[in-house]
Amino acid sequence: MRVANFNGGPGSLPVEVLEEAARDMMDWHGTGMSIMENSHRSKEVVAMVDEVVADLRALLNLGEDWAVIFCQGGASLQFAMIPINFAGPGGHCDYINTGLWATRAYKEARICGSNPRLAATSEDDDFTHIPDVFDFNPEAKYVYLTSNNTVRGTQCQHFPTNAPAPLIADMSSEFLSRPVNLEHFGLIYAGAQKNVGPAGVTVVAMRRDLADKARLDVPTMLSYPSYIKNDSMYNTPPVWNIYISGLTFKWLRRTVGGLENMAATNKIKADTLYGAIDGSSGFYRGTARPGSRSSMNVTFRLPGEDLDKKFKKEAQSEGLVGLGGHRSVGGLRASLYNAVGRDSVDKLVEFMAEFQRRNG
Amino acid sequence: MRVANFNGGPGSLPVEVLEEAARDMMDWHGTGMSIMENSHRSKEVVAMVDEVVADLRALLNLGEDWAVIFCQGGASLQFAMIPINFAGPGGHCDYINTGLWATRAYKEARICGSNPRLAATSEDDDFTHIPDVFDFNPEAKYVYLTSNNTVRGTQCQHFPTNAPAPLIADMSSEFLSRPVNLEHFGLIYAGAQKNVGPAGVTVVAMRRDLADKARLDVPTMLSYPSYIKNDSMYNTPPVWNIYISGLTFKWLRRTVGGLENMAATNKIKADTLYGAIDGSSGFYRGTARPGSRSSMNVTFRLPGEDLDKKFKKEAQSEGLVGLGGHRSVGGLRASLYNAVGRDSVDKLVEFMAEFQRRNG
Repeated sequence: MRVANFNGGPGSLPVEVLEEAARDMMDWHGTGMSIMENSHRSKEVVAMVDEVVADLRALLNLGEDWAVIFCQGGASLQFAMIPINFAGPGGHCDYINTGLWATRAYKEARICGSNPRLAATSEDDDFTHIPDVFDFNPEAKYVYLTSNNTVRGTQCQHFPTNAPAPLIADMSSEFLSRPVNLEHFGLIYAGAQKNVGPAGVTVVAMRRDLADKARLDVPTMLSYPSYIKNDSMYNTPPVWNIYISGLTFKWLRRTVGGLENMAATNKIKADTLYGAIDGSSGFYRGTARPGSRSSMNVTFRLPGEDLDKKFKKEAQSEGLVGLGGHRSVGGLRASLYNAVGRDSVDKLVEFMAEFQRRNG
Repeated sequence: MRVANFNGGPGSLPVEVLEEAARDMMDWHGTGMSIMENSHRSKEVVAMVDEVVADLRALLNLGEDWAVIFCQGGASLQFAMIPINFAGPGGHCDYINTGLWATRAYKEARICGSNPRLAATSEDDDFTHIPDVFDFNPEAKYVYLTSNNTVRGTQCQHFPTNAPAPLIADMSSEFLSRPVNLEHFGLIYAGAQKNVGPAGVTVVAMRRDLADKARLDVPTMLSYPSYIKNDSMYNTPPVWNIYISGLTFKWLRRTVGGLENMAATNKIKADTLYGAIDGSSGFYRGTARPGSRSSMNVTFRLPGEDLDKKFKKEAQSEGLVGLGGHRSVGGLRASLYNAVGRDSVDKLVEFMAEFQRRNG
């Protein structure tokens, strides 16, 4: 029996996607083999990858001035690729620190020999809000941010418009959950496993005029231009991971009907859950500041760690899984990624009310 | 209908593996979700990864002085990680050049700022044999080789025993196809998509005393010690790709009965095909020198490119697919990876005889 999956990532995938993948496992598209056994240079796989790119372009409304590539190594490899390509040794770059992942990205830029600087941080506030006052370095080659903080449950409600350089954003845990105006962005990326597919592929979209400024004296597999030039096939790409992400893109376009619709459903899901938290007379307590609340990761606590644990355990036995907070902060977290249905959220909210009656 | 799959990579996978993956797609191991939707830090996934490592250790007969990790980025990222970790800026390292992939590894070491040198090359002979005379640099930090050349169809029949430093080998296209004496090796690795699983995971085994010598001033996702310290979970690993590779390891242990058995079957397959080539009175011509012939990738040509094309096309329509040579050399190639059954080879040999009757 399928459970209600609130995992923070890897997270829930659409049932239709899994059903199609299972159905085509032994013989994908009449090739007589699974997609994993097909050559990545076969006309069928090349056409599949082209279609994945086209669907993503349509969803994000990207023009030809944007390139789309598939990398590996998750967000953590992007943490290195970004300064290596765009700042270089001693090069300046600005970071907006909204929590664990932004901090890691900032530190990695230093490891890579660049000269990162914090343009803003909410560390003093325990990362419970997204900063909105920035001290930009005019020499920065880019301004880096994490648009949704999976750990603390915060999300950018708007983006800086006065940055001195292109914005580069890790959108992993909110990718394709809402339309985003990309006017001030140079590059956005997402590790697939939060909202679109299996861990093992990172979707990267970047403006070609930014890519043209990338340094060329870098290892081939870390070079953005090398991915662009070779349509992500300098070597064998993670075909299965791209394929599943592509099925999710199709689901978003055909079944959901695009990002406006997805955002509307995600808003209902988040409003339902935050409503239950805020209406619990303080029994459930949201940990992110209301103005910075994430629609993807809802973090909350009960009165005391024992109750947190009891809640998590009893929820699990009711088929509500993945509700533990990130191991760095504890507490509870319900991730409401695109594929998490409204029925799952309704079930959670019912359980919360019932749990409060018994333990409040 | 399943075809006979002679793809050079991604290549054939065992039918049992695909069947199990399809069966468990909606509900893996009673978790109520697919393995792609499980948290990588759940006890179920951690146990799965531990088991994959244990099965690999058993297959390769690795002691505790060896570490096993899972990377991403294919062999091409290893081309960079190896010099970055073990040679560093200006550091010496030796390469045995057996063809395209070894050449790329050598060039990448230079891009990474190290000082690679060719200890041997068969380039003058068009890479149709594996060199066996070496001019080692006593200052080399390691000696790099590609144990099986997928493009030219050559394979090391033995390995250097007098190298001044640990051997590091790309074994991608012959991984787990035969037992290998690892006495002189410091590190071996394989992109999964040739012989064990889907593209998107690279299996790396290395001696811990070599790992202890790795440089520490490198980006986290390029640092071998960081993978070892975190059991390959510094960030989210490619869970699906590891899972499928693990199912193949189990198939190798349980169904095949280990690497001795696998090697015996692979020898029969290769002998059958080379026998057909050598017995064709010159109609089919093997392109690798007999003493260097690969049991994994059998490269051959017919009298003329037109016949090559005709052969490939007619074979395809008989359900014998993936017989085109690597795009850099053309001709024909039958890859006989572990999961390619003897029935597929028999079918190919029959077709070859029949094709020769009609066109010889």
